[in-house]
Amino acid sequence: MIIVLKPSHTPKELTALLKEIRRLGYQPHVMRGVARTVIGAIGDERSHPSLDALCAWSQVESVTPIQKRHKLVSREAHPQNSTIRVRDVVIGGPELVVMAGPCSVESEPQIIETAHAVKAAGAKILRGGAFKPRTSPYEFQGLGEKGLKLLAKARKETGLPVITELLSEDHAELVAEYADILQIGARNAQNFQLLIAAAKTGRPVLLKRGLSMRIEEWLSAGEYVLSNDNAGLMFCERGIRTFETYTRNTLDLSAVPIMKNETHCPVVIDPSQGTGRADLVVAMCKGAVAMGSDALLVEVHPNPKAAKSDSAQQLSLEAFAKMMTELRPFAQAAGRG
Amino acid sequence: MIIVLKPSHTPKELTALLKEIRRLGYQPHVMRGVARTVIGAIGDERSHPSLDALCAWSQVESVTPIQKRHKLVSREAHPQNSTIRVRDVVIGGPELVVMAGPCSVESEPQIIETAHAVKAAGAKILRGGAFKPRTSPYEFQGLGEKGLKLLAKARKETGLPVITELLSEDHAELVAEYADILQIGARNAQNFQLLIAAAKTGRPVLLKRGLSMRIEEWLSAGEYVLSNDNAGLMFCERGIRTFETYTRNTLDLSAVPIMKNETHCPVVIDPSQGTGRADLVVAMCKGAVAMGSDALLVEVHPNPKAAKSDSAQQLSLEAFAKMMTELRPFAQAAGRG
Amino acid sequence: MIIVLKPSHTPKELTALLKEIRRLGYQPHVMRGVARTVIGAIGDERSHPSLDALCAWSQVESVTPIQKRHKLVSREAHPQNSTIRVRDVVIGGPELVVMAGPCSVESEPQIIETAHAVKAAGAKILRGGAFKPRTSPYEFQGLGEKGLKLLAKARKETGLPVITELLSEDHAELVAEYADILQIGARNAQNFQLLIAAAKTGRPVLLKRGLSMRIEEWLSAGEYVLSNDNAGLMFCERGIRTFETYTRNTLDLSAVPIMKNETHCPVVIDPSQGTGRADLVVAMCKGAVAMGSDALLVEVHPNPKAAKSDSAQQLSLEAFAKMMTELRPFAQAAGRG
Amino acid sequence: MIIVLKPSHTPKELTALLKEIRRLGYQPHVMRGVARTVIGAIGDERSHPSLDALCAWSQVESVTPIQKRHKLVSREAHPQNSTIRVRDVVIGGPELVVMAGPCSVESEPQIIETAHAVKAAGAKILRGGAFKPRTSPYEFQGLGEKGLKLLAKARKETGLPVITELLSEDHAELVAEYADILQIGARNAQNFQLLIAAAKTGRPVLLKRGLSMRIEEWLSAGEYVLSNDNAGLMFCERGIRTFETYTRNTLDLSAVPIMKNETHCPVVIDPSQGTGRADLVVAMCKGAVAMGSDALLVEVHPNPKAAKSDSAQQLSLEAFAKMMTELRPFAQAAGRG
Repeated sequence: MIIVLKPSHTPKELTALLKEIRRLGYQPHVMRGVARTVIGAIGDERSHPSLDALCAWSQVESVTPIQKRHKLVSREAHPQNSTIRVRDVVIGGPELVVMAGPCSVESEPQIIETAHAVKAAGAKILRGGAFKPRTSPYEFQGLGEKGLKLLAKARKETGLPVITELLSEDHAELVAEYADILQIGARNAQNFQLLIAAAKTGRPVLLKRGLSMRIEEWLSAGEYVLSNDNAGLMFCERGIRTFETYTRNTLDLSAVPIMKNETHCPVVIDPSQGTGRADLVVAMCKGAVAMGSDALLVEVHPNPKAAKSDSAQQLSLEAFAKMMTELRPFAQAAGRG
Repeated sequence: MIIVLKPSHTPKELTALLKEIRRLGYQPHVMRGVARTVIGAIGDERSHPSLDALCAWSQVESVTPIQKRHKLVSREAHPQNSTIRVRDVVIGGPELVVMAGPCSVESEPQIIETAHAVKAAGAKILRGGAFKPRTSPYEFQGLGEKGLKLLAKARKETGLPVITELLSEDHAELVAEYADILQIGARNAQNFQLLIAAAKTGRPVLLKRGLSMRIEEWLSAGEYVLSNDNAGLMFCERGIRTFETYTRNTLDLSAVPIMKNETHCPVVIDPSQGTGRADLVVAMCKGAVAMGSDALLVEVHPNPKAAKSDSAQQLSLEAFAKMMTELRPFAQAAGRG
Repeated sequence: MIIVLKPSHTPKELTALLKEIRRLGYQPHVMRGVARTVIGAIGDERSHPSLDALCAWSQVESVTPIQKRHKLVSREAHPQNSTIRVRDVVIGGPELVVMAGPCSVESEPQIIETAHAVKAAGAKILRGGAFKPRTSPYEFQGLGEKGLKLLAKARKETGLPVITELLSEDHAELVAEYADILQIGARNAQNFQLLIAAAKTGRPVLLKRGLSMRIEEWLSAGEYVLSNDNAGLMFCERGIRTFETYTRNTLDLSAVPIMKNETHCPVVIDPSQGTGRADLVVAMCKGAVAMGSDALLVEVHPNPKAAKSDSAQQLSLEAFAKMMTELRPFAQAAGRG
Repeated sequence: MIIVLKPSHTPKELTALLKEIRRLGYQPHVMRGVARTVIGAIGDERSHPSLDALCAWSQVESVTPIQKRHKLVSREAHPQNSTIRVRDVVIGGPELVVMAGPCSVESEPQIIETAHAVKAAGAKILRGGAFKPRTSPYEFQGLGEKGLKLLAKARKETGLPVITELLSEDHAELVAEYADILQIGARNAQNFQLLIAAAKTGRPVLLKRGLSMRIEEWLSAGEYVLSNDNAGLMFCERGIRTFETYTRNTLDLSAVPIMKNETHCPVVIDPSQGTGRADLVVAMCKGAVAMGSDALLVEVHPNPKAAKSDSAQQLSLEAFAKMMTELRPFAQAAGRG
């Protein structure tokens, strides 16, 4: 930690502060500058109590940590890329993995038709929401367990592993019984109890970035998964909230190279939530693939016009198949199959 | 709903669209403008299925709702101010209510001393965190049930009702057993399962605004409480996330007049989380009181320098007492006791 | 400056870095921590060349300045409040100063009527736009020099000093000839050439905060005025851009106590631009006054319904007079006349 | 325009409103809905006076425009892509154009060496700042006219056209004399007087997106160039300001497909300003090229460690050459040379 003192501090105050720093388990190191006195506090910031409380000392101007709070997710601790195997599919390896399917599971024909179509187009994992978090209590809340069963049926017919959202601690066991990957949504990205419950099922966890989550907070949230003995963590950028209103969210593609630098966990891009507009999905996918995303999570519906949720952002089956063809040269340019 | 068509649509497409609008239960009304054709869809947007799906029609440029999604929280539905009685304290009435106490309950002496001191200074409700949501799994997570018991003990000694945070559906019964008001934190503001669980306990619920929650989303989240048969809802502004880094958050005091316009539920301001800096708390409280806030939620600690969480933003007991004196003329100017 | 090294650096790289730090005029001070090596560079960061360039060294993880870039605007350099005298009016002194008038000067009767009315209600300075910066080239751009002449006429009739916006370097002389205070608008807050031109006229300058300007950037922009030999600088918060769409901008009232801490220059609040809604102006003014704002800048129009710009945010003459009465007890509570 | 009335309006108020709408040149069209009455105002919103002023009517809840304010920049008005020829280079055509060079022109050897190197690597245009807008008045402000002369010399030696920033109306003639393209920086993106001055030189104008500029505001700012008889407009995304602090700005790559939809003008990406970190530039360029950007604007310096400005974001000559090779397969995949 670096502690900067106000110009007005007295020698006595400095002595008291140094004593407190030692009490907290750090070795203080004083540097007298031209305009400010600075104390470096030497010690492992992750095992000792935090020095943040020093902010409450009246003579302290600022306290700046040197070490990051997360460790298990960091590339520093684990230089190689992690890979996650889900049945026969490997995420984070040489192959680009596309996860596709409807925003919500709505009926058996809808999900079965979609599963066959996205498989034929090259998708490797089927997505679909059974429990839906909706901004208003009066909107369609998903089919619940019935939706999970339909996903399982679609998997049985097509062999595609299934990813679906978990939005209640109380459903963790139930969802884990049917799903191959548990998705934690943006609005729950700092619902730490849910992250722990998801981790404890042992299923891989796809952690979406919260709407206004800084990179460092996202990494720390991921730490809740790895520190609960679940190595199957992947991070999914799905658009952040900015001042822009043209799109529903601003898909932050810089998250791809940043997260590949910071963490060994696979990085996934969701261009459907990320823009809220089907007409932007193809371009965003091309960018994501070119920039090194390990996987894509794309909303696809047999009839977007009749979708029960988020119709504006779902691709038709034909549009999805066309996109998969168009992505190929970019995947190859990025050294991916 | 107002549906704007692209200039290029054909008569046949228009006919198909009108048919779909009728099928969804609305009466379409076509207006041909100079540059665009616009359809007004007449019908109750809260009882009929949403027209959002029309966005997926290729000839549609935009779909704009006219009615708000929420109803029970709205001032339109309930013109009088709602009041919430918690033991002998009334929130939302003529008297300004101050809720004060430590960020985290840390020990019996800490919470008992604080309770006595804030009561003496004029606070009417005791706050204190027992279960703490922390950005990193390696930070102090609160005393849990032991903390709840200490809060109950402080209530017994001082008579102050108690507010504490609920952060897991699985704790709802437990926390409701000890606490008089359940607080839903900013990071859980759209954890709808938690909102429902809190509502079902029957205890009043203080719903903090999420870090990047629009007014309308906040009102819709509140609707989850009222529509689950709990009339005891209050809204608490605690700072939003912006580009500014000088403060931890940007406390949006305009939320006071806006929420007083939009909803009948009481409005609370939390200047401690809202700024993250004890030195700004007094000024923010003066502003909040002048602008018509029904209550304040203030962090106070007997020894902020030694606090286990958020030390930089907690007032000392003396500073709190001084502030309470300073607030009096502003409360009077605002017509409050 | 504090320079943090990556864990992988070699002794040779460290030596080269220390040499470079000395070459740039600083004294390096090495601290070896548990996880990182940190270098404190001792020297006056405002007189020596910046060490930012060290970021480009591959073994450097981060470079953090200790000193602020601004000096003349800072409270540290000038502990007493600065006051600005404009004819008989003193801004930054014990009296709260209200500046009021229309968004745009539209006609002689409009500005004269407004000037008389705001004076009668207690305003001390007349505002009015002659040159208007408009988002679109097809909107009303102001009356230009004719508007300036009408402002001067209104001043002659009422004795109220005049504030108006400067938006072109080429107009600096012209506007300074007619106006008592030059306003720099939010969109020009980092148009440094314009700031210099305004400063050089010798007239006091009201510098609005840019839409996404951090406190520190705002202070640095103010430094352009003071360092060009113009001591008459005041800062005006007028709403920042956030994700919220309910209001046009989010008026950041925390800017009042923050700027009063950081700088000796007067602080002004503009609730009209700050919210874009006349119905919120009164509450925002109450908050601003309670929090210690030195002045208010309020848009007032004899007939807002017919205004040529920003009609939604202008108060009528009656509403303004009523507000002035309502503000009195808050000004008194804040120790102001 | 769509005008929504409050539920409480009287028939008399409605009549007055309809009269006003007609007076403003529109044909009103009333729709009585279940919860609200809505008026469609038929007329050309770009030639008639704005209806915004209706917001000031007490019975009006909201006013929503149907038409966009801009016309000349819109794809609707000009369906084909515009191309801009600068000496032998065509921007917006089939070939991807890379503009590269130092943040600031610092010396003759620096700019000449860079010009030769970027040309050899495949860049088609040389960038370099002569007049620099700096956050603080104490930072390096550029070489001014001397810098322009050095750019002209570099052009003479290499044949590369030159782009440089214009930051003062008073320099417009001077800069246009030396430069082939005038760059308007992010902080001046709504300095409309500067946009007009730039347009009037007749040189092509590269308009950067302001730090918190919405797509629609950016298009409207561009309208200031086209409506001043200069068809040579290109838009450059350079990162927006968000809550994220990991990068200096958040480069919004979704601007590429959005702007290609909305406007016929070429779209350029600046990954150097956009991220502030050289280590992210390559990935951002790959994404930009894959997504259809017409051009890239990249900062390159012979010795970033010694750069006088923005050293952290400049690529070395070697790194730039390597990147140009790596971009090739992505440009081919995107159908570009």
